[in-house]
Amino acid sequence: MHKVFYGALVSPRTLSALTVSPSALLCVSHTSGDIEWIEHDVHPSALRGVLANHGLQLDDIEFTELKHGEFLMPGFIDTHLHPCQVPNAGSGQEHELLDWLKHYTFPLEAKFKDDDFAKRVYSPVVRRIVDAGTTTCCYFGSQQLGANKVLADLVHDIGQRAFVGKCNMNREAPDYYVEPSTAHSVEATHQLIHYIRGLTPRPESALVQPILTPRFAISCTPDLLQSLGELALADPSLTIQTHLSENASEIAYTKELFKDHIPPPADGKEITYAGVYDAYHLLRENTVLAHAVHLEDEEIELLHRRKAGVSHCPTSNFNLRSGCAKIGVLLDRGIKVGLGTDVSGGFSLSMLTAVQHASVASKLATLHHPCPSADSFASRHLGIPTLLYLATQGGADVCNIPRRTGSLDPGKAFDALLVSVCDTAGNPGLWGSDFDLEELEAMLERFLFCGDDRNIRRVYVQGKFIGGKESRP
Amino acid sequence: MHKVFYGALVSPRTLSALTVSPSALLCVSHTSGDIEWIEHDVHPSALRGVLANHGLQLDDIEFTELKHGEFLMPGFIDTHLHPCQVPNAGSGQEHELLDWLKHYTFPLEAKFKDDDFAKRVYSPVVRRIVDAGTTTCCYFGSQQLGANKVLADLVHDIGQRAFVGKCNMNREAPDYYVEPSTAHSVEATHQLIHYIRGLTPRPESALVQPILTPRFAISCTPDLLQSLGELALADPSLTIQTHLSENASEIAYTKELFKDHIPPPADGKEITYAGVYDAYHLLRENTVLAHAVHLEDEEIELLHRRKAGVSHCPTSNFNLRSGCAKIGVLLDRGIKVGLGTDVSGGFSLSMLTAVQHASVASKLATLHHPCPSADSFASRHLGIPTLLYLATQGGADVCNIPRRTGSLDPGKAFDALLVSVCDTAGNPGLWGSDFDLEELEAMLERFLFCGDDRNIRRVYVQGKFIGGKESRP
Ligand SMILES: [Zn+2]
Ligand SMILES: [Zn+2]
Repeated sequence: MHKVFYGALVSPRTLSALTVSPSALLCVSHTSGDIEWIEHDVHPSALRGVLANHGLQLDDIEFTELKHGEFLMPGFIDTHLHPCQVPNAGSGQEHELLDWLKHYTFPLEAKFKDDDFAKRVYSPVVRRIVDAGTTTCCYFGSQQLGANKVLADLVHDIGQRAFVGKCNMNREAPDYYVEPSTAHSVEATHQLIHYIRGLTPRPESALVQPILTPRFAISCTPDLLQSLGELALADPSLTIQTHLSENASEIAYTKELFKDHIPPPADGKEITYAGVYDAYHLLRENTVLAHAVHLEDEEIELLHRRKAGVSHCPTSNFNLRSGCAKIGVLLDRGIKVGLGTDVSGGFSLSMLTAVQHASVASKLATLHHPCPSADSFASRHLGIPTLLYLATQGGADVCNIPRRTGSLDPGKAFDALLVSVCDTAGNPGLWGSDFDLEELEAMLERFLFCGDDRNIRRVYVQGKFIGGKESRP
Repeated sequence: MHKVFYGALVSPRTLSALTVSPSALLCVSHTSGDIEWIEHDVHPSALRGVLANHGLQLDDIEFTELKHGEFLMPGFIDTHLHPCQVPNAGSGQEHELLDWLKHYTFPLEAKFKDDDFAKRVYSPVVRRIVDAGTTTCCYFGSQQLGANKVLADLVHDIGQRAFVGKCNMNREAPDYYVEPSTAHSVEATHQLIHYIRGLTPRPESALVQPILTPRFAISCTPDLLQSLGELALADPSLTIQTHLSENASEIAYTKELFKDHIPPPADGKEITYAGVYDAYHLLRENTVLAHAVHLEDEEIELLHRRKAGVSHCPTSNFNLRSGCAKIGVLLDRGIKVGLGTDVSGGFSLSMLTAVQHASVASKLATLHHPCPSADSFASRHLGIPTLLYLATQGGADVCNIPRRTGSLDPGKAFDALLVSVCDTAGNPGLWGSDFDLEELEAMLERFLFCGDDRNIRRVYVQGKFIGGKESRP
């Protein structure tokens, strides 16, 4: 049976405009899980007629009528999250990046050598991420092959759209958590890619995709980056994720480690962090670069030329004192940007927190760096349409699946949330009593700033109801 | 019956140290609701003996044994919240202060001229604030006498500790929401004070206290501030709250409005914002000053001399693009500081959000203003002990009730939260599976950063169980 929804709908349209449709009729194909068609401004009296025009009758469809205070929106796309760090969320926040890795992160990630431990942690982790409204997730996995197979299985079973990557790290990590060799790292990477593509008969359209995941340049020897780059060149559809320019010490150390290994820029300047990835063919239109807090101008140009995207992780950037990424500048330069929670650099699994902190970061950026051109993103804080875009379509752009998900439009997958901002949703932080007077965009703003998992009634991926408050006991 | 709690307990001790007691026994007097005694490190086998030493038997007391993953802590003290703006929480965030007042705030506050509207809004608002763990709240009420009586009644009935003030504003507001005269404003203020003090037979020890509430200098004519200052001089126990130095335009306009009305400083400099309040005798040890984002050095000196306290409202300061208050500098100078949610300048009723944003603000402050002395608060971000202090005891200091509440210590009121960070609490944002390995301070950090109302099982004020998750259906 086709699923048909009748009610309010919001969806990103451009970086600065959204679609707000108070009485839309949206039809999801039973066979594909894609959105077949959407009709806007459907009066209740016209409902049956509109359905009939599409060859449907109320009795033949699974019909959901939304109440006032409810709306459909595209699911969140979390472009950067470390599932193997979730048990650390909200701890160790006194450190900056490199110390935090050493004292909190590596010891936990090392435990995932035990597949049972991985299963015990990942089962609730994936469930929580889905229930938080994340329909697509870039999982930055631990180093061990087995744990990542466990993760891929769980994500596949639950039906979330995801990229699952085993992280590559053959140096600059403690003995107990470093890969023994380049060959070992590359071989395990091949195996995971093969395993994930074997999960379904048609891997090219599968929900779960492999992703190449060098941890960051520091943790990979030049020959490992070389091998991963060759792997990427041989497999253009393979998505890539890594970290870029998060922290001053990290940047300096990266340059130090690679300055004798890659060709210097023609202008005689020193090498750049992004330039390291580029030298190994790792920057392309399906590369997801987390953070990009302190980009040099040459790096912005390079990212733009390569069409690589940025995962903006403001919670983590605040928390680890990395800084305030200048997202407005990146948007003005045409760089693709999505949002990431970066748990446990960030302390919250919810993309709502990422949205709130992206708003804060953009407000702080305009405070400290006023820009003369009032028409630019750099000169003003990110408004609601932009925040919605970054949390949904921007993520799809960054993951290079912009026509598959990210907005509610015909031909795309129905990756959607059924949101309720009613008081009955049970979130006392969201005041919803007076919605008779409110416009849909105001409801969206309230949800983004005051919402939590209790406001996410249902989560759909590829047309299938896979999570949300209604799915829990 | 005395209430006795057995289990983990955390409480602030100083600005940089907390008490962490994994197996404490705490006794609350049935008659006073105060904490009678606390014994630390009580082994289960010694329980009956310790009770007997205090003349108690298990059968004669209301005994609560905390599970692993649960702890007692002092309730939050929200030193700045506008209850009449709660329905706007999470909306209108595109504006800065003065425009936001005009377009969003004044129109809503004006509706409180209708007592029924006030009752309809305030009933759920006070309930939500209590359930969020706020045991003491500084309510910055609307302008109308009636609505504030309604609020005081509700707070009194529910049993929260609170200061309730009717805001004074006889100019620089729209016609529909400005007080008609100085005399009218002062008379209504007197009436509310009288009304609140009449709620109980012993008003000096009542939970609900009146508070003098000039909105801010801009909205009060010099003769109104003069009259309020006289009222304050005649009544030294009367607490005072107002706004100070939130936004550059506000500061400039305040100076413009008052420069010909108060004496210039002796050194020939221009007047300061804080100096305006001081000229009218409104700065004293029971004055709560919200924001203080852009204080001049002379103002910090003045606050220190007058022992006035600051309510740090980072969520609001980010949200309205006011700036990043330099709290470390204030702490180094010995200024009393508490936290405030400042709803709806801030979008969250929960003091947990205030704590998270206070952490962010302090991390950003050290990023932009590195300070040479590593031993100062200004040179480092606020750690967990400091954040806990600000959210509890710091608030009590600012409200000038430091010996009544703010920490769990004998002789103080039992104003406390029973917190659960167990998975069974039902908050999917807080990962609690692995607490066997965890120390109490780590649990506190997780609660502060990942917690929500679902982790607050019970809320006690003056020994009485008045809210929290267990009190809800
Ligand atoms: Zn990361
Ligand atoms: Zn305020």
